[in-house]
Amino acid sequence: MMYCQSCRVYRSGVVCNDCYEKAGETVEKLKREIEEHKAKIAFLRFWSPLDHRHQPSYTDLVLLAEDGASGSAVPIPAHKAVLVNRSPVFKAMLENEMEEKRSGTVKISDASYDALCAFINYMYTGEVCLEEKMACELLELAEKYEVKHLKAYCEKFLVSKLNWDNSIMSYVFAYQHNAKHLLRAALSLITDNMSNFTRRDEYMELVEKEPRLVVEIYEVYLSKQVNAAAQESFLSMSH
Amino acid sequence: MMYCQSCRVYRSGVVCNDCYEKAGETVEKLKREIEEHKAKIAFLRFWSPLDHRHQPSYTDLVLLAEDGASGSAVPIPAHKAVLVNRSPVFKAMLENEMEEKRSGTVKISDASYDALCAFINYMYTGEVCLEEKMACELLELAEKYEVKHLKAYCEKFLVSKLNWDNSIMSYVFAYQHNAKHLLRAALSLITDNMSNFTRRDEYMELVEKEPRLVVEIYEVYLSKQVNAAAQESFLSMSH
Repeated sequence: MMYCQSCRVYRSGVVCNDCYEKAGETVEKLKREIEEHKAKIAFLRFWSPLDHRHQPSYTDLVLLAEDGASGSAVPIPAHKAVLVNRSPVFKAMLENEMEEKRSGTVKISDASYDALCAFINYMYTGEVCLEEKMACELLELAEKYEVKHLKAYCEKFLVSKLNWDNSIMSYVFAYQHNAKHLLRAALSLITDNMSNFTRRDEYMELVEKEPRLVVEIYEVYLSKQVNAAAQESFLSMSH
Repeated sequence: MMYCQSCRVYRSGVVCNDCYEKAGETVEKLKREIEEHKAKIAFLRFWSPLDHRHQPSYTDLVLLAEDGASGSAVPIPAHKAVLVNRSPVFKAMLENEMEEKRSGTVKISDASYDALCAFINYMYTGEVCLEEKMACELLELAEKYEVKHLKAYCEKFLVSKLNWDNSIMSYVFAYQHNAKHLLRAALSLITDNMSNFTRRDEYMELVEKEPRLVVEIYEVYLSKQVNAAAQESFLSMSH
Protein backbone atom coordinates (compact mmCIF):
# COMPACT_ATOMS: atom_id res chain seq x y z
CA MET A 1 0.00 0.00 0.00
CA MET A 2 1.26 3.46 -0.92
CA TYR A 3 0.32 7.02 -0.09
CA CYS A 4 -1.11 8.79 -3.17
CA GLN A 5 0.55 12.18 -3.54
CA SER A 6 -2.42 13.35 -5.58
CA CYS A 7 -5.57 12.31 -3.72
CA ARG A 8 -3.85 11.86 -0.30
CA VAL A 9 -5.27 8.39 0.25
CA TYR A 10 -3.48 5.08 0.81
CA ARG A 11 -3.59 3.01 -2.39
CA SER A 12 -1.96 -0.08 -3.78
CA GLY A 13 -0.82 0.67 -7.38
CA VAL A 14 1.57 3.61 -7.82
CA VAL A 15 2.93 5.81 -10.60
CA CYS A 16 5.71 8.37 -10.27
CA ASN A 17 4.95 12.07 -10.09
CA ASP A 18 6.82 12.75 -13.35
CA CYS A 19 4.49 10.55 -15.37
CA TYR A 20 1.49 11.99 -13.55
CA GLU A 21 2.62 15.56 -14.25
CA LYS A 22 3.29 14.70 -17.90
CA ALA A 23 -0.34 13.60 -18.15
CA GLY A 24 -1.38 16.90 -16.54
CA GLU A 25 0.70 18.88 -19.03
CA THR A 26 -0.94 16.99 -21.89
CA VAL A 27 -4.33 17.98 -20.51
CA GLU A 28 -3.29 21.66 -20.43
CA LYS A 29 -1.94 21.45 -23.98
CA LEU A 30 -5.17 19.88 -25.24
CA LYS A 31 -7.30 22.48 -23.44
CA ARG A 32 -5.36 25.28 -25.14
CA GLU A 33 -5.88 23.55 -28.49
CA ILE A 34 -9.61 23.34 -27.81
CA GLU A 35 -9.73 27.09 -27.10
CA GLU A 36 -8.06 27.73 -30.46
CA HIS A 37 -10.57 25.49 -32.23
CA LYS A 38 -13.46 27.29 -30.53
CA ALA A 39 -12.13 30.67 -31.67
CA LYS A 40 -11.83 29.37 -35.23
CA ILE A 41 -15.37 28.00 -35.15
CA ALA A 42 -16.62 31.38 -33.93
CA PHE A 43 -14.77 33.00 -36.84
CA LEU A 44 -16.08 30.60 -39.50
CA ARG A 45 -19.66 30.54 -38.23
CA PHE A 46 -22.18 32.62 -40.19
CA TRP A 47 -25.10 34.61 -38.91
CA SER A 48 -28.22 32.69 -39.75
CA PRO A 49 -30.66 34.52 -42.03
CA LEU A 50 -33.19 33.66 -39.28
CA ASP A 51 -31.13 35.39 -36.59
CA HIS A 52 -33.07 38.57 -35.93
CA ARG A 53 -30.06 40.36 -34.46
CA HIS A 54 -28.66 40.55 -38.00
CA GLN A 55 -30.66 41.58 -41.05
CA PRO A 56 -29.91 38.94 -43.70
CA SER A 57 -28.02 40.68 -46.48
CA TYR A 58 -27.42 39.68 -50.10
CA THR A 59 -29.61 36.59 -49.98
CA ASP A 60 -30.21 35.28 -53.50
CA LEU A 61 -32.61 32.40 -52.83
CA VAL A 62 -35.73 31.55 -50.81
CA LEU A 63 -36.64 28.18 -49.34
CA LEU A 64 -40.21 27.03 -48.79
CA ALA A 65 -41.33 24.22 -46.48
CA GLU A 66 -43.98 22.05 -48.12
CA ASP A 67 -45.45 19.79 -45.48
CA GLY A 68 -49.02 20.05 -46.74
CA ALA A 69 -49.83 22.53 -43.99
CA SER A 70 -47.37 24.89 -45.63
CA GLY A 71 -50.04 27.41 -46.48
CA SER A 72 -48.76 29.26 -43.43
CA ALA A 73 -45.10 28.67 -44.25
CA VAL A 74 -42.99 31.80 -44.49
CA PRO A 75 -40.29 31.80 -47.21
CA ILE A 76 -36.80 31.57 -45.69
CA PRO A 77 -34.16 33.74 -47.37
CA ALA A 78 -30.74 32.15 -47.90
CA HIS A 79 -27.46 32.43 -49.80
CA LYS A 80 -26.82 30.04 -52.68
CA ALA A 81 -23.10 30.18 -51.84
CA VAL A 82 -23.74 28.81 -48.35
CA LEU A 83 -26.06 26.00 -49.43
CA VAL A 84 -23.77 24.98 -52.29
CA ASN A 85 -20.79 24.83 -49.91
CA ARG A 86 -22.60 22.65 -47.40
CA SER A 87 -24.60 20.29 -49.56
CA PRO A 88 -23.68 18.43 -52.78
CA VAL A 89 -27.40 18.12 -53.52
CA PHE A 90 -27.96 21.88 -53.40
CA LYS A 91 -24.78 22.25 -55.46
CA ALA A 92 -26.15 20.02 -58.21
CA MET A 93 -29.60 21.60 -57.96
CA LEU A 94 -28.38 25.18 -58.21
CA GLU A 95 -25.40 24.87 -60.53
CA ASN A 96 -27.15 22.85 -63.20
CA GLU A 97 -29.94 24.31 -65.26
CA MET A 98 -32.79 23.24 -63.03
CA GLU A 99 -36.04 24.92 -62.21
CA GLU A 100 -34.69 26.02 -58.81
CA LYS A 101 -31.82 27.90 -60.43
CA ARG A 102 -34.16 29.87 -62.69
CA SER A 103 -36.82 30.60 -60.10
CA GLY A 104 -34.50 31.25 -57.15
CA THR A 105 -36.98 29.28 -55.02
CA VAL A 106 -36.35 25.84 -53.56
CA LYS A 107 -39.36 23.90 -52.27
CA ILE A 108 -38.42 21.51 -49.46
CA SER A 109 -41.05 18.77 -49.39
CA ASP A 110 -41.93 16.56 -46.41
CA ALA A 111 -40.38 19.07 -44.00
CA SER A 112 -42.10 21.12 -41.33
CA TYR A 113 -41.38 24.82 -41.22
CA ASP A 114 -39.67 24.43 -37.84
CA ALA A 115 -37.43 21.64 -39.13
CA LEU A 116 -36.50 23.69 -42.18
CA CYS A 117 -35.62 26.67 -39.97
CA ALA A 118 -33.42 24.46 -37.79
CA PHE A 119 -31.84 22.95 -40.92
CA ILE A 120 -31.01 26.35 -42.41
CA ASN A 121 -29.71 27.61 -39.07
CA TYR A 122 -27.40 24.60 -38.96
CA MET A 123 -26.15 25.24 -42.49
CA TYR A 124 -25.01 28.70 -41.35
CA THR A 125 -23.97 28.17 -37.74
CA GLY A 126 -23.24 24.44 -37.33
CA GLU A 127 -25.47 24.57 -34.25
CA VAL A 128 -28.88 23.21 -33.32
CA CYS A 129 -30.76 22.45 -30.12
CA LEU A 130 -32.20 18.94 -30.49
CA GLU A 131 -35.07 16.98 -29.03
CA GLU A 132 -36.00 13.56 -30.40
CA LYS A 133 -38.68 14.57 -32.93
CA MET A 134 -36.52 17.37 -34.31
CA ALA A 135 -33.47 15.07 -34.46
CA CYS A 136 -35.48 12.64 -36.64
CA GLU A 137 -36.76 15.39 -38.96
CA LEU A 138 -33.28 16.91 -39.31
CA LEU A 139 -31.66 13.53 -39.93
CA GLU A 140 -34.09 13.02 -42.82
CA LEU A 141 -33.25 16.44 -44.28
CA ALA A 142 -29.51 15.89 -43.72
CA GLU A 143 -29.71 12.56 -45.54
CA LYS A 144 -31.77 13.99 -48.40
CA TYR A 145 -29.37 16.91 -48.96
CA GLU A 146 -26.23 14.94 -48.06
CA VAL A 147 -25.18 17.12 -45.13
CA LYS A 148 -23.03 14.42 -43.50
CA HIS A 149 -21.99 16.49 -40.49
CA LEU A 150 -25.59 17.18 -39.45
CA LYS A 151 -26.68 13.59 -40.08
CA ALA A 152 -23.89 12.26 -37.85
CA TYR A 153 -24.82 14.80 -35.17
CA CYS A 154 -28.51 13.81 -35.16
CA GLU A 155 -27.67 10.09 -35.21
CA LYS A 156 -25.34 10.46 -32.22
CA PHE A 157 -28.12 12.27 -30.34
CA LEU A 158 -30.68 9.54 -31.16
CA VAL A 159 -28.27 6.80 -30.03
CA SER A 160 -27.90 8.64 -26.71
CA LYS A 161 -31.72 8.67 -26.33
CA LEU A 162 -32.16 4.99 -27.25
CA ASN A 163 -34.13 2.92 -24.72
CA TRP A 164 -36.31 -0.17 -24.63
CA ASP A 165 -39.52 1.77 -25.34
CA ASN A 166 -38.25 3.53 -28.46
CA SER A 167 -35.95 0.71 -29.60
CA ILE A 168 -38.26 -0.74 -32.30
CA MET A 169 -39.25 2.69 -33.63
CA SER A 170 -35.57 3.67 -33.67
CA TYR A 171 -34.63 0.44 -35.46
CA VAL A 172 -37.19 1.04 -38.21
CA PHE A 173 -36.21 4.69 -38.53
CA ALA A 174 -32.50 3.84 -38.69
CA TYR A 175 -33.23 1.22 -41.34
CA GLN A 176 -35.25 3.62 -43.49
CA HIS A 177 -32.62 6.35 -43.32
CA ASN A 178 -29.49 4.25 -43.46
CA ALA A 179 -28.28 5.33 -40.00
CA LYS A 180 -25.82 2.52 -39.29
CA HIS A 181 -24.78 3.43 -35.73
CA LEU A 182 -28.37 3.83 -34.57
CA LEU A 183 -29.32 0.59 -36.35
CA ARG A 184 -26.55 -1.37 -34.63
CA ALA A 185 -27.38 0.07 -31.21
CA ALA A 186 -31.11 -0.62 -31.58
CA LEU A 187 -30.50 -4.15 -32.87
CA SER A 188 -28.29 -5.11 -29.95
CA LEU A 189 -30.82 -3.70 -27.48
CA ILE A 190 -33.67 -5.64 -29.12
CA THR A 191 -31.80 -8.93 -29.56
CA ASP A 192 -30.77 -8.83 -25.90
CA ASN A 193 -34.49 -8.97 -25.00
CA MET A 194 -36.01 -11.14 -27.73
CA SER A 195 -38.67 -12.77 -25.54
CA ASN A 196 -39.94 -9.34 -24.44
CA PHE A 197 -39.63 -8.07 -27.99
CA THR A 198 -42.00 -10.67 -29.44
CA ARG A 199 -44.58 -9.83 -26.73
CA ARG A 200 -44.83 -6.20 -27.81
CA ASP A 201 -47.70 -4.92 -29.98
CA GLU A 202 -45.16 -3.17 -32.20
CA TYR A 203 -43.74 -6.59 -32.97
CA MET A 204 -47.04 -7.69 -34.52
CA GLU A 205 -47.32 -4.43 -36.45
CA LEU A 206 -43.79 -4.84 -37.74
CA VAL A 207 -44.45 -8.43 -38.84
CA GLU A 208 -47.48 -7.08 -40.70
CA LYS A 209 -45.88 -4.04 -42.31
CA GLU A 210 -42.15 -4.80 -42.58
CA PRO A 211 -41.56 -8.54 -42.23
CA ARG A 212 -38.11 -8.14 -43.83
CA LEU A 213 -36.99 -6.04 -40.88
CA VAL A 214 -38.23 -8.69 -38.44
CA VAL A 215 -36.27 -11.34 -40.32
CA GLU A 216 -33.11 -9.26 -39.99
CA ILE A 217 -33.65 -9.04 -36.24
CA TYR A 218 -33.97 -12.82 -36.01
CA GLU A 219 -30.86 -13.29 -38.14
CA VAL A 220 -28.82 -11.07 -35.79
CA TYR A 221 -30.32 -12.89 -32.79
CA LEU A 222 -29.42 -16.26 -34.27
CA SER A 223 -25.80 -15.32 -34.98
CA LYS A 224 -25.54 -14.06 -31.40
CA GLN A 225 -26.78 -17.42 -30.13
CA VAL A 226 -24.32 -19.31 -32.33
CA ASN A 227 -21.40 -17.17 -31.15
CA ALA A 228 -22.39 -17.56 -27.52
CA ALA A 229 -22.64 -21.35 -27.94
CA ALA A 230 -19.24 -21.49 -29.64
CA GLN A 231 -17.72 -19.45 -26.81
CA GLU A 232 -19.26 -21.74 -24.22
CA SER A 233 -18.02 -24.95 -25.81
CA PHE A 234 -14.57 -23.35 -26.14
CA LEU A 235 -14.52 -22.48 -22.45
CA SER A 236 -15.75 -25.92 -21.38
CA MET A 237 -12.99 -27.49 -23.50
CA SER A 238 -10.31 -25.24 -22.02
CA HIS A 239 -11.25 -26.38 -18.47
CA MET B 1 12.36 5.41 -3.89
CA MET B 2 9.44 3.79 -5.70
CA TYR B 3 8.98 1.81 -8.87
CA CYS B 4 6.96 3.79 -11.45
CA GLN B 5 4.23 1.57 -12.88
CA SER B 6 4.09 3.81 -15.91
CA CYS B 7 7.67 4.42 -17.08
CA ARG B 8 9.12 1.38 -15.26
CA VAL B 9 11.88 3.40 -13.57
CA TYR B 10 12.65 3.86 -9.88
CA ARG B 11 11.47 7.30 -8.76
CA SER B 12 10.97 9.16 -5.52
CA GLY B 13 7.54 10.88 -5.69
CA VAL B 14 4.53 8.63 -6.30
CA VAL B 15 0.88 8.93 -7.28
CA CYS B 16 -1.69 6.14 -7.23
CA ASN B 17 -2.78 4.46 -10.45
CA ASP B 18 -6.36 5.68 -10.00
CA CYS B 19 -5.37 9.33 -10.18
CA TYR B 20 -3.02 8.58 -13.06
CA GLU B 21 -5.73 6.77 -15.00
CA LYS B 22 -8.19 9.59 -14.31
CA ALA B 23 -5.71 11.95 -15.97
CA GLY B 24 -5.49 9.52 -18.90
CA GLU B 25 -9.27 9.41 -19.25
CA THR B 26 -9.37 13.22 -19.29
CA VAL B 27 -6.85 13.17 -22.14
CA GLU B 28 -9.03 10.74 -24.11
CA LYS B 29 -12.12 12.86 -23.48
CA LEU B 30 -10.36 16.00 -24.66
CA LYS B 31 -9.01 14.27 -27.76
CA ARG B 32 -12.54 13.20 -28.71
CA GLU B 33 -13.72 16.79 -28.19
CA ILE B 34 -10.93 18.02 -30.48
CA GLU B 35 -12.02 15.59 -33.20
CA GLU B 36 -15.56 16.96 -32.96
CA HIS B 37 -14.27 20.53 -33.23
CA LYS B 38 -12.19 19.60 -36.28
CA ALA B 39 -15.22 18.07 -37.99
CA LYS B 40 -17.24 21.21 -37.28
CA ILE B 41 -14.47 23.43 -38.66
CA ALA B 42 -14.40 21.30 -41.82
CA PHE B 43 -18.16 21.74 -42.09
CA LEU B 44 -18.13 25.52 -41.57
CA ARG B 45 -15.13 26.20 -43.79
CA PHE B 46 -15.86 27.63 -47.23
CA TRP B 47 -14.15 26.94 -50.52
CA SER B 48 -12.03 29.93 -51.31
CA PRO B 49 -12.93 31.67 -54.58
CA LEU B 50 -9.21 31.26 -55.33
CA ASP B 51 -9.34 27.49 -54.85
CA HIS B 52 -9.13 26.16 -58.39
CA ARG B 53 -10.70 22.83 -57.48
CA HIS B 54 -14.01 24.67 -57.11
CA GLN B 55 -15.34 27.21 -59.56
CA PRO B 56 -16.44 30.19 -57.47
CA SER B 57 -20.20 30.46 -57.80
CA TYR B 58 -22.59 33.34 -57.10
CA THR B 59 -19.85 35.86 -56.35
CA ASP B 60 -21.32 39.37 -56.22
CA LEU B 61 -18.19 41.48 -55.67
CA VAL B 62 -14.61 41.84 -56.92
CA LEU B 63 -11.60 42.98 -54.92
CA LEU B 64 -8.61 44.77 -56.42
CA ALA B 65 -5.16 45.08 -54.85
CA GLU B 66 -3.75 48.58 -55.27
CA ASP B 67 -0.09 48.52 -54.28
CA GLY B 68 1.03 50.91 -57.01
CA ALA B 69 2.25 47.98 -59.09
CA SER B 70 -1.33 46.83 -59.34
CA GLY B 71 -1.43 47.28 -63.09
CA SER B 72 -0.94 43.52 -63.19
CA ALA B 73 -3.36 42.82 -60.35
CA VAL B 74 -6.14 40.37 -61.21
CA PRO B 75 -9.59 41.12 -59.75
CA ILE B 76 -10.51 38.60 -57.04
CA PRO B 77 -14.16 37.49 -57.03
CA ALA B 78 -15.83 37.22 -53.63
CA HIS B 79 -19.17 37.00 -51.83
CA LYS B 80 -20.48 40.07 -50.02
CA ALA B 81 -22.16 37.75 -47.50
CA VAL B 82 -18.80 36.23 -46.51
CA LEU B 83 -16.93 39.53 -46.19
CA VAL B 84 -19.79 41.15 -44.26
CA ASN B 85 -19.88 38.20 -41.83
CA ARG B 86 -16.14 38.32 -41.16
CA SER B 87 -15.41 42.03 -41.06
CA PRO B 88 -17.33 44.92 -39.47
CA VAL B 89 -15.51 47.28 -41.86
CA PHE B 90 -16.72 45.44 -44.96
CA LYS B 91 -20.16 45.33 -43.34
CA ALA B 92 -20.25 49.11 -42.97
CA MET B 93 -18.74 49.60 -46.42
CA LEU B 94 -21.19 47.33 -48.23
CA GLU B 95 -24.40 47.89 -46.27
CA ASN B 96 -24.27 51.67 -46.30
CA GLU B 97 -24.67 53.60 -49.50
CA MET B 98 -21.00 53.82 -50.37
CA GLU B 99 -19.27 53.77 -53.72
CA GLU B 100 -18.24 50.12 -53.18
CA LYS B 101 -21.85 49.04 -52.81
CA ARG B 102 -22.87 50.63 -56.07
CA SER B 103 -19.86 49.54 -58.10
CA GLY B 104 -19.52 46.04 -56.65
CA THR B 105 -15.75 46.65 -56.65
CA VAL B 106 -13.62 47.14 -53.54
CA LYS B 107 -10.12 48.55 -54.02
CA ILE B 108 -7.72 47.39 -51.30
CA SER B 109 -4.94 49.96 -51.08
CA ASP B 110 -1.42 49.35 -49.70
CA ALA B 111 -1.80 45.60 -50.16
CA SER B 112 0.15 43.34 -52.49
CA TYR B 113 -1.81 40.97 -54.69
CA ASP B 114 -0.36 37.97 -52.83
CA ALA B 115 -1.33 39.41 -49.45
CA LEU B 116 -4.85 40.11 -50.67
CA CYS B 117 -5.16 36.54 -51.97
CA ALA B 118 -4.03 35.16 -48.60
CA PHE B 119 -6.43 37.55 -46.83
CA ILE B 120 -9.41 36.45 -48.93
CA ASN B 121 -8.45 32.78 -48.54
CA TYR B 122 -8.44 33.29 -44.80
CA MET B 123 -11.86 34.95 -44.83
CA TYR B 124 -13.26 31.78 -46.43
CA THR B 125 -11.20 28.99 -44.89
CA GLY B 126 -9.72 30.36 -41.65
CA GLU B 127 -6.37 29.05 -42.86
CA VAL B 128 -3.13 30.59 -44.08
CA CYS B 129 0.50 29.51 -44.40
CA LEU B 130 2.62 32.29 -42.86
CA GLU B 131 6.16 33.55 -43.18
CA GLU B 132 7.29 36.77 -41.52
CA LYS B 133 6.71 39.23 -44.37
CA MET B 134 3.27 37.79 -45.12
CA ALA B 135 2.37 37.79 -41.40
CA CYS B 136 3.11 41.54 -41.28
CA GLU B 137 1.11 42.30 -44.43
CA LEU B 138 -1.84 40.23 -43.21
CA LEU B 139 -1.74 41.76 -39.73
CA GLU B 140 -2.06 45.19 -41.39
CA LEU B 141 -5.03 44.04 -43.47
CA ALA B 142 -6.62 42.31 -40.47
CA GLU B 143 -6.29 45.48 -38.41
CA LYS B 144 -7.64 47.69 -41.19
CA TYR B 145 -10.71 45.48 -41.75
CA GLU B 146 -11.10 44.49 -38.09
CA VAL B 147 -10.68 40.75 -38.62
CA LYS B 148 -9.67 40.05 -35.00
CA HIS B 149 -9.14 36.32 -35.42
CA LEU B 150 -6.60 36.80 -38.22
CA LYS B 151 -4.83 39.65 -36.44
CA ALA B 152 -4.38 37.51 -33.30
CA TYR B 153 -3.11 34.63 -35.44
CA CYS B 154 -0.50 36.78 -37.22
CA GLU B 155 0.58 38.44 -33.97
CA LYS B 156 1.08 35.07 -32.28
CA PHE B 157 3.22 33.96 -35.23
CA LEU B 158 5.36 37.13 -35.07
CA VAL B 159 5.89 36.73 -31.32
CA SER B 160 7.13 33.18 -31.98
CA LYS B 161 9.65 34.58 -34.54
CA LEU B 162 10.86 37.40 -32.29
CA ASN B 163 14.65 37.56 -31.79
CA TRP B 164 17.34 40.12 -30.98
CA ASP B 165 17.94 40.99 -34.66
CA ASN B 166 14.29 41.75 -35.47
CA SER B 167 13.36 43.07 -32.02
CA ILE B 168 13.53 46.80 -32.86
CA MET B 169 11.74 46.37 -36.19
CA SER B 170 9.10 44.26 -34.43
CA TYR B 171 8.70 46.85 -31.68
CA VAL B 172 8.10 49.64 -34.20
CA PHE B 173 5.72 47.49 -36.23
CA ALA B 174 3.78 46.42 -33.12
CA TYR B 175 3.56 50.07 -32.04
CA GLN B 176 2.25 51.22 -35.42
CA HIS B 177 -0.37 48.48 -35.62
CA ASN B 178 -1.40 48.32 -31.98
CA ALA B 179 -0.24 44.71 -31.51
CA LYS B 180 0.01 44.63 -27.70
CA HIS B 181 1.43 41.11 -27.22
CA LEU B 182 4.17 41.65 -29.79
CA LEU B 183 4.91 45.08 -28.30
CA ARG B 184 5.28 43.68 -24.78
CA ALA B 185 7.48 40.79 -25.96
CA ALA B 186 9.75 43.07 -28.03
CA LEU B 187 10.01 45.64 -25.21
CA SER B 188 11.10 43.07 -22.64
CA LEU B 189 13.68 41.64 -25.07
CA ILE B 190 15.09 45.12 -25.77
CA THR B 191 15.09 46.39 -22.17
CA ASP B 192 16.94 43.24 -21.08
CA ASN B 193 19.81 44.30 -23.38
CA MET B 194 19.79 48.09 -23.16
CA SER B 195 23.55 48.57 -23.51
CA ASN B 196 23.58 46.50 -26.72
CA PHE B 197 20.42 48.24 -27.89
CA THR B 198 21.96 51.71 -27.78
CA ARG B 199 24.96 50.45 -29.79
CA ARG B 200 22.82 49.38 -32.75
CA ASP B 201 22.51 51.53 -35.89
CA GLU B 202 18.74 51.08 -35.73
CA TYR B 203 18.86 52.85 -32.38
CA MET B 204 20.23 56.00 -34.00
CA GLU B 205 17.69 55.76 -36.82
CA LEU B 206 14.89 55.37 -34.30
CA VAL B 207 16.09 58.38 -32.29
CA GLU B 208 16.05 60.32 -35.57
CA LYS B 209 12.68 59.17 -36.89
CA GLU B 210 10.62 58.12 -33.85
CA PRO B 211 12.11 59.64 -30.68
CA ARG B 212 8.80 59.04 -28.87
CA LEU B 213 9.23 55.27 -29.25
CA VAL B 214 12.77 55.49 -27.83
CA VAL B 215 11.46 57.42 -24.83
CA GLU B 216 8.91 54.67 -24.18
CA ILE B 217 11.69 52.08 -24.21
CA TYR B 218 13.67 54.11 -21.64
CA GLU B 219 10.56 54.50 -19.49
CA VAL B 220 10.00 50.75 -19.42
CA TYR B 221 13.71 50.20 -18.73
CA LEU B 222 13.64 52.70 -15.85
CA SER B 223 10.60 51.14 -14.19
CA LYS B 224 12.33 47.75 -14.45
CA GLN B 225 15.37 49.20 -12.67
CA VAL B 226 13.23 50.73 -9.94
CA ASN B 227 11.36 47.46 -9.34
CA ALA B 228 14.58 45.49 -9.23
CA ALA B 229 16.06 47.93 -6.73
CA ALA B 230 12.94 47.80 -4.55
CA GLN B 231 13.08 43.98 -4.59
CA GLU B 232 16.75 44.02 -3.61
CA SER B 233 16.29 46.38 -0.66
CA PHE B 234 13.31 44.29 0.47
CA LEU B 235 15.40 41.12 0.42
CA SER B 236 18.34 42.77 2.23
CA MET B 237 15.90 43.99 4.94
CA SER B 238 14.36 40.57 5.38
CA HIS B 239 17.83 39.07 6.10
